Amino acid sequence: MNTASPNTSAPLYEGKAKKVFATANPAEYRVQYKDDATAFNAQKRGSWAGKGAVNNAMTAHLFPLLEQAGVPTHFIEQLSDTEQRVKAVTIVPVEVIVRNVAAGSFCKRLGLEEGEPLARPVVEYCYKSDALGDPLINTDTAVALGWASEEDLARIRELALKVRDFLTPYFEQRGVRLIDFKLEFGKLPSGEIVLADEISPDTCRFWDAQTGERLDKDRFRRDLGGEAEAYAEMLRRVTAQV
Amino acid sequence: MNTASPNTSAPLYEGKAKKVFATANPAEYRVQYKDDATAFNAQKRGSWAGKGAVNNAMTAHLFPLLEQAGVPTHFIEQLSDTEQRVKAVTIVPVEVIVRNVAAGSFCKRLGLEEGEPLARPVVEYCYKSDALGDPLINTDTAVALGWASEEDLARIRELALKVRDFLTPYFEQRGVRLIDFKLEFGKLPSGEIVLADEISPDTCRFWDAQTGERLDKDRFRRDLGGEAEAYAEMLRRVTAQV
Repeated sequence: MNTASPNTSAPLYEGKAKKVFATANPAEYRVQYKDDATAFNAQKRGSWAGKGAVNNAMTAHLFPLLEQAGVPTHFIEQLSDTEQRVKAVTIVPVEVIVRNVAAGSFCKRLGLEEGEPLARPVVEYCYKSDALGDPLINTDTAVALGWASEEDLARIRELALKVRDFLTPYFEQRGVRLIDFKLEFGKLPSGEIVLADEISPDTCRFWDAQTGERLDKDRFRRDLGGEAEAYAEMLRRVTAQV
Repeated sequence: MNTASPNTSAPLYEGKAKKVFATANPAEYRVQYKDDATAFNAQKRGSWAGKGAVNNAMTAHLFPLLEQAGVPTHFIEQLSDTEQRVKAVTIVPVEVIVRNVAAGSFCKRLGLEEGEPLARPVVEYCYKSDALGDPLINTDTAVALGWASEEDLARIRELALKVRDFLTPYFEQRGVRLIDFKLEFGKLPSGEIVLADEISPDTCRFWDAQTGERLDKDRFRRDLGGEAEAYAEMLRRVTAQV
């Protein structure tokens, strides 16, 4: 499982942190996790060894647990340190942010102190567009502009909250406060909505429950240093038996 | 009705275009419309004679019609050219934008051409905060941060769409496309949600149905000139028998 498959063709899609390849089976893709990191809509760029492997391993660990918890996902199996096999889906161009605690852009936008607990989870939608900086939208806008149907968004919200309800205590048991996280969903040819993309320190805010130490991409965003160590520590905690 | 009442006390509230005064009756306020105009979160400022009078008269004309159409409002009666008597309400700090056609900040944010029709009306919420530039929010955020209850927001949405369903054909019959508009709602001591604030060329985008000419505050925002004439023309059309 330690040798990446040779990439014999151009990716179908290359994002900031992953490449997606077609496979011999049209119903499946191969995803390759990169060590590249970007922040602030790619205005800041970096890279560190092992990042792709941590994100691949964490996602490969959590997605099957989420399946068991009733959240259908695109995940099939881990192929190598940096690769996984997934179902071919059409990504819904609406990113979903779930917030337990105020942090990051939410605080800046609304004049809040970082760390302020939210009286209830907040689900936000952003239009997935690098060119526009992933602007905040709502259900009406997504439906009016044809990005998702009202039914799909209702299902996406239901699944996003189910992910939160599973992950929040899961991380709490491992000494980690799950502050917020970003999800992406895809649509199978059948029309079924499934969780896609990844769950990793790139897409979640993880704060150590005792010290408040940041164990996520904010180390990179905010020049805190120790990215590789924080990511490795998070993978250790996520895969630990508790 | 042409003489403004003397203002014997400081306003309870002074906004960019209106002052609100307490009255001898604690259940009522007096609203005074100003000729001042601001745009882009008060970075641009101006003023023209007659603006306050147009906005006062248009609101005084439309709010009773909306009451008849099933939308409770704070409006009681017009007192003078620039004043009206209203019920004392607590303003819900959530501004409501209803869009029939893409225009303004919505286009800039989402990369759309101005004038693109929307497949269905879009209702957006913004947190009423000059300091933060009235940031876009959603229901979860308003509820989580205590700005409005879920029930109040459901009622506000219902009323906002009722206002749209009344105003859109009303303006169409007068040769005007209602592109979008901003509403504010207040809460009576009983807990009832009522339409507050104003409906005017300050708070709506009005395009002439034939020529596309802007008949609203975009004349000021975009330095098109002819603000006073456009506002007067809109008042003429709104109060015309058709």
